Amino acid sequence: MEILPIAHIECDFDSKFGIPRQSGVVKELTARIVFAHEFRNPEAFRELDGFSHIWLLWDFSETHKDKWSPTVRPPRLGGNKRVGVFATRSPFRPNAIGLSVVRLVSIDFDCADAPVLVVEGADLMNGTPIYDVKPYLPYADSIPDAVGGFTDAIQQNQPLLDVCYADGAEERLASLYADKFGADEARRKIMALEQILSNDPRPHYQHDASRVYGMTFAGIDIHFVVSENKITVI
Amino acid sequence: MEILPIAHIECDFDSKFGIPRQSGVVKELTARIVFAHEFRNPEAFRELDGFSHIWLLWDFSETHKDKWSPTVRPPRLGGNKRVGVFATRSPFRPNAIGLSVVRLVSIDFDCADAPVLVVEGADLMNGTPIYDVKPYLPYADSIPDAVGGFTDAIQQNQPLLDVCYADGAEERLASLYADKFGADEARRKIMALEQILSNDPRPHYQHDASRVYGMTFAGIDIHFVVSENKITVI
Repeated sequence: MEILPIAHIECDFDSKFGIPRQSGVVKELTARIVFAHEFRNPEAFRELDGFSHIWLLWDFSETHKDKWSPTVRPPRLGGNKRVGVFATRSPFRPNAIGLSVVRLVSIDFDCADAPVLVVEGADLMNGTPIYDVKPYLPYADSIPDAVGGFTDAIQQNQPLLDVCYADGAEERLASLYADKFGADEARRKIMALEQILSNDPRPHYQHDASRVYGMTFAGIDIHFVVSENKITVI
Repeated sequence: MEILPIAHIECDFDSKFGIPRQSGVVKELTARIVFAHEFRNPEAFRELDGFSHIWLLWDFSETHKDKWSPTVRPPRLGGNKRVGVFATRSPFRPNAIGLSVVRLVSIDFDCADAPVLVVEGADLMNGTPIYDVKPYLPYADSIPDAVGGFTDAIQQNQPLLDVCYADGAEERLASLYADKFGADEARRKIMALEQILSNDPRPHYQHDASRVYGMTFAGIDIHFVVSENKITVI
């Protein structure tokens, strides 16, 4: 079947580095779902505002591969243990479609590219193509007593690292974001960034305390070092 | 993006009529997920057996349409009220991909077409192509306090109809299923069928007590009439 993007996401991640490993992990992250012209029909969204959460079906566009891999190494298992690809949400699967639930904050019916969905908690890169938006149906989709296999043993929403700043770094960051977004929005960007950092954004588990890592968040380059359980923005 | 089926489902629904409107509604329904040859690699399923539930991404193959519809009439709203297609799980959407969570009962590594996933609660028609199998991650996917919009007002798991039998119909049904499947499996088929019937399998809300409806379940043609809140298998 040929599937075509109906929308794309606009958010603060311009590269894969730093994106939370599942949706909902960093709740402060806001994003916009902007639809292609033919789907900008307010009728198609009637009654959607009654739902608190929506599913996104999206394109693992950064990791399209010619071949799928029968086993993968989930980052949260330290990147060493191999499990079957169908036991993970890894992108290296036969059909590269991602599935994420996000909080629906509002529907903007008045902006230039309306209707736009404003969402929180997305684990998608800026510009990711979206194939479908579906309402989250609590009576069918929420299974609180479901057993999550090897993921149950991982403390998923527990921050891994304490976030610190080198001398002057906190003020510099605050002023860079304030110039770009104003004081209020700057505070939200920094709260989101600190959550991302506390979740250990390094691609694989490493103990290299001398290495300076870099990521871009909301248009600002952030550099940091990690030592023991401390992550220091420099 | 071109997506290709990786598996298909084998279950008791040979037509759309009678299929529950969401997964999990009729828990007694068992089905098999049979993979295409290139995916019959036990390694790809390593550690999947630790999960109690899985997501299926599947093809609304019976309802492929050239054009999507901005609004649809959900059956559970009586088939009269129109809501936006993105506020529903209706098949009449731009990309005809269905999303269902099912219980993973077991993985059969020994049968002829192994590995086969044995699942419960699927709302799919027999033969439906499947594009992806993903583990259900309780920490990310289960949101018990999510608000379900207009679906919250519908008593989703409340049976709508009392199931009765015309004289001799119950015995005849039991013997037909027993001949086909043996006594134990026959009892399970009848339990599942009664749940399907109690959920009102009629395509749209109707008050026509004189009409005889028919559906096929597990290879047996079932006829019934509906009057008030009583459904009678004849």
